[in-house]
Amino acid sequence: MIDKTIRMNYLYDFYYELLTEKQNQYMSMYYLDDWSLGEIAEHFNISRQAVYDNIRRTEVLLEEYEKKLELLKKYEGRKTQIERLKQLLQQGEQHPHIKEVVRALEKLE
Amino acid sequence: MIDKTIRMNYLYDFYYELLTEKQNQYMSMYYLDDWSLGEIAEHFNISRQAVYDNIRRTEVLLEEYEKKLELLKKYEGRKTQIERLKQLLQQGEQHPHIKEVVRALEKLE
Repeated sequence: MIDKTIRMNYLYDFYYELLTEKQNQYMSMYYLDDWSLGEIAEHFNISRQAVYDNIRRTEVLLEEYEKKLELLKKYEGRKTQIERLKQLLQQGEQHPHIKEVVRALEKLE
Repeated sequence: MIDKTIRMNYLYDFYYELLTEKQNQYMSMYYLDDWSLGEIAEHFNISRQAVYDNIRRTEVLLEEYEKKLELLKKYEGRKTQIERLKQLLQQGEQHPHIKEVVRALEKLE
């Protein structure tokens, strides 16, 4: 299980297009730009509790989207699979197309 | 550009979890089970126009999800990429891991 902040960063990255503008503002300030709840509250002139509630609700929403669409889960599945492929291919470095295959695999992620 | 029915089948497959129960009923009957608008209308004892409107609105909604999340577009990108990889690998059939790599690549789709 990955760390909650890392997980939220991933989920946010996958599903931000489904959030409202306000949800996006708070989430990107908190998770991407590392502002504190207090700093966000002061910036928008609202209570710290209001920011906290909004972000927690958005986190729940992101988990609901993940439960439905499983984009992070599928991404991790592909990543594991691709890592295995790279290892397989690296065992055969003499093969003329190996490097190109590895570069192409990286694009799949 | 793929045919509209095929496209809707794909979009429905990617996003059905985001639809309501009613939207899912109509869409699966119309697109997956190939019922006519009239048959669906009769089954639910509503007008053909109501079924038509609901399905058209759901189609628009699916296109909106695709515009935001691009799951079909990304899937097609991966498919093209994977096809290219398979061709590359098949050029080097003597390589001992090729068959395993191809099988693994197929799982990526």
